[in-house]
Amino acid sequence: MDELLEQSLLYDFYGELLTEHQRKAYEAYLFEDLSLAEIAEEQGISRQGVHDMVKRSRKTLQDYEDKLGLVKRFADAKERIGQIRKLTDTSEGLSPEETRDRFREISKLASGLLEEF
Amino acid sequence: MDELLEQSLLYDFYGELLTEHQRKAYEAYLFEDLSLAEIAEEQGISRQGVHDMVKRSRKTLQDYEDKLGLVKRFADAKERIGQIRKLTDTSEGLSPEETRDRFREISKLASGLLEEF
Repeated sequence: MDELLEQSLLYDFYGELLTEHQRKAYEAYLFEDLSLAEIAEEQGISRQGVHDMVKRSRKTLQDYEDKLGLVKRFADAKERIGQIRKLTDTSEGLSPEETRDRFREISKLASGLLEEF
Repeated sequence: MDELLEQSLLYDFYGELLTEHQRKAYEAYLFEDLSLAEIAEEQGISRQGVHDMVKRSRKTLQDYEDKLGLVKRFADAKERIGQIRKLTDTSEGLSPEETRDRFREISKLASGLLEEF
């Protein structure tokens, strides 16, 4: 997975567990694409302070994912929901048998998801 | 939602964030259906100690859900995946138009899920 996307997902899932200060610095770094020096100036702390805070935030988020694995759980589900959507994209002109098979395939994917959730 | 189911879901999602001691007591209480006195004897702590530990564990899990809301996010997704499966259950004998509409409905549900994930 793309590094920025992965960081965004981790933040989306676990960001509320960071302190407000950490969130502010991390959001500026990740989403506003500001440099460490710019964030430092904006928040009135040293460049090194911002660097440490961003680094610690990233580690905290990753630690939560290592324990809970919910980003991965969602990503797996998302992939299978994408498969379901794909099966409905090209559904024109199918024979009755193909249609039946298509519904069965979708049903199987949905059932698998429900069992794991 | 049923109280026991809700507690189980909270534990399933955030249980790894409890200490090992808390997990042990909480699992015995929740899943093995032991009384506080039985858990106390098994783990060599006072009945009051078990009571406090279970109470604190429950609060910790609920605090995580209040912040992250991931149990709710999953439950919402699960409901819509259930709708998708239901739409495939009664797909026999549909007219071509009904079949097309059915695929569209499934596609819409899947797309909605993908956007929110």
